[in-house]
Amino acid sequence: MNNLEAEKYNLRGVSSSKHQVHAALEGTSKGIYPQAFCKIIPDILTSDPEYCLVMHADGAGTKSSLAYCYWKETGDMSVWEGIAQDAIVMNLDDLLCVGVTDDILLSSTIGRNKRLVPAEVIAGLIGGSRKFCEAMEQHGIRMELTGGETADVGDLVRTVIVDSTVCARIHRDQVIDNGRIQPGDVVVGLASDGQTTYEDTYNSGIGSNGLTSARHDVFDNTLAALCPESYDDGIPQAVTYSGTKKLTDVHAPTGMTYGKLVLSPTRTYAPVVKAVFEQCRAHIHGMVHCTGGGQTKVLHFVNNLHIVKDNLFPVPHVFSEIREISGTPWKELYTVFNMGHRMELYVPRHAADTVIQTAARYNLAAQIIGYVEEGKGGSRVTVSGPHGTYVYTK
Amino acid sequence: MNNLEAEKYNLRGVSSSKHQVHAALEGTSKGIYPQAFCKIIPDILTSDPEYCLVMHADGAGTKSSLAYCYWKETGDMSVWEGIAQDAIVMNLDDLLCVGVTDDILLSSTIGRNKRLVPAEVIAGLIGGSRKFCEAMEQHGIRMELTGGETADVGDLVRTVIVDSTVCARIHRDQVIDNGRIQPGDVVVGLASDGQTTYEDTYNSGIGSNGLTSARHDVFDNTLAALCPESYDDGIPQAVTYSGTKKLTDVHAPTGMTYGKLVLSPTRTYAPVVKAVFEQCRAHIHGMVHCTGGGQTKVLHFVNNLHIVKDNLFPVPHVFSEIREISGTPWKELYTVFNMGHRMELYVPRHAADTVIQTAARYNLAAQIIGYVEEGKGGSRVTVSGPHGTYVYTK
Repeated sequence: MNNLEAEKYNLRGVSSSKHQVHAALEGTSKGIYPQAFCKIIPDILTSDPEYCLVMHADGAGTKSSLAYCYWKETGDMSVWEGIAQDAIVMNLDDLLCVGVTDDILLSSTIGRNKRLVPAEVIAGLIGGSRKFCEAMEQHGIRMELTGGETADVGDLVRTVIVDSTVCARIHRDQVIDNGRIQPGDVVVGLASDGQTTYEDTYNSGIGSNGLTSARHDVFDNTLAALCPESYDDGIPQAVTYSGTKKLTDVHAPTGMTYGKLVLSPTRTYAPVVKAVFEQCRAHIHGMVHCTGGGQTKVLHFVNNLHIVKDNLFPVPHVFSEIREISGTPWKELYTVFNMGHRMELYVPRHAADTVIQTAARYNLAAQIIGYVEEGKGGSRVTVSGPHGTYVYTK
Repeated sequence: MNNLEAEKYNLRGVSSSKHQVHAALEGTSKGIYPQAFCKIIPDILTSDPEYCLVMHADGAGTKSSLAYCYWKETGDMSVWEGIAQDAIVMNLDDLLCVGVTDDILLSSTIGRNKRLVPAEVIAGLIGGSRKFCEAMEQHGIRMELTGGETADVGDLVRTVIVDSTVCARIHRDQVIDNGRIQPGDVVVGLASDGQTTYEDTYNSGIGSNGLTSARHDVFDNTLAALCPESYDDGIPQAVTYSGTKKLTDVHAPTGMTYGKLVLSPTRTYAPVVKAVFEQCRAHIHGMVHCTGGGQTKVLHFVNNLHIVKDNLFPVPHVFSEIREISGTPWKELYTVFNMGHRMELYVPRHAADTVIQTAARYNLAAQIIGYVEEGKGGSRVTVSGPHGTYVYTK
């Protein structure tokens, strides 16, 4: 990332790298599988040494701020169902990466400004969570809504913040811990856009990361006047809603409004991954959910390996739009957004077809997007394709 | 609550009753012990029918906004340790009410405005959580920090929001579910102020409820200019920091600054309650943590009972100050703040002494603050004492 771009991040009060947060966590235990995607701890609930536990937290981030604007402008309540799904999937799909697909406890924490966010929105969020869990149950993904907290905290929260926490128990034999990712493995990517058999509409692939950038880069400054409560007015005006689109402008290729394109709910890969586990769990050496850090996320979980990504999916519309409107450099885009696949599986080459064919049953595009080789002195990711070749280190 | 006072709540974007939230949750399962303080579900992690699970979420609320102001004004980092404790104890002490004192999974979710809240604050919060858990472990209260999420969400969060989620497993024989609260029981209250053997300083008793009221009622309007980021500037100025004190004004009777008096960390009763359970768990018919709803909280958990509270503790300094500065009516104060005891145990009269003597070992004041009688057509709480007699219904 060049200095100008890094500065834009700082000005907007976000970061894609979380160096500060990782430093603050220094000294905190990494759990019993230090390379695993989620922290895994011994099963202190039953003391059974054959099992372990994972408890994990994440949320919809500033996507809820965009949902608020869209709802305020259009009255469309469905955006809240999307936000509920975002907050759940950001956790559920992290759990997939350690091998968990079932019997997941789910708690949600919502903080709202009661002056601006009425009870119907809370009902929309809670109803959305319930609806999503019911849909997943049809695919054998059992999540149990344990409740949660809804707090009126207008002095802290401008509009509404939606977070979830999950907890699951897994047999140690079943854990995927990224420790077996090795030279010779291929990387199978699962597409982030398109429409799977378990989705009702086209999914833009945006997920729930980089939404501060996406919102301010895509939408024009009329949104600042329309929804002054949707952003931190302490950030410089030059980086506030500095794009060219209005929420209800229509993106011709998809027929969706730009608002809906950027609000597209985070797709879960759970039904597909569950089916993949049934086929070839033992062959999966590692899994990475390409969230914060985008295509470089894997660097947190490997040692002395070079991940070559030289056959990525075509860039989904939503990221092309962000690129075109903002002029953000390609190298940076790969560190903020998933750019085409939000889930990657590290497997020996002979297992790749099984993954790809299983995904196809759900109308989910999957392909070998790269491979693993020795790092020769350190880990790095090389992204290589029609938009250039970029090298990333930890 | 009279109309004027209710209006002040609405204007500030908070509520003590959560009617709206409860309505939004309509249709959501209440779990297998519908009267229990926390929602309890079958043990889906092991499928053992003798066990059950509880997953629970709560946070420090707008107390973190006051911590932010105090830290900004004085540089005192210790306030963040207090906020970490608040977010944990608001969960831990809820768990006590269903009988859980040990082997608790703890996850924290922090949302910050990176522009205003630097990494050292995050480190203070995470370090504070660790320190509190280590202190509890000395008393046999084992909590496991499972990690959590720290998100840079300045477009949503003015300063910093700190939430926790907990998960525990308990044998069904050990559950305290409030279903046995009955006419003839006495109510033993555990004092919220003072200094227990496991606290380093005087605790004002404030807890983490009613902090929007407490902050705006106690502190004067210079705080609005000093920390405009500490409140929702959409609330009318008449109810914004409408008190008379400055953060660093000293409260003579305690020698504490008013800032620290209101920031006093939420006391946990865990060491005492664990010892009480060892003495007489089977005699405990119910437990209520007097959080949102204050002395009327019990109304959520009983049917057709009249709870008479006619021997409350003397009102702690912090609540007297709030009363004097704001002129808030007594009837309302009892619904917002704990007013003297933040935990109450419903026990047969013969068991009360055991609870009181056990508490005394920790230098914690405890006394019979009331009793239970038949409701005769509905549940109600009567608070009766030197400041009047007030009746509350659900």
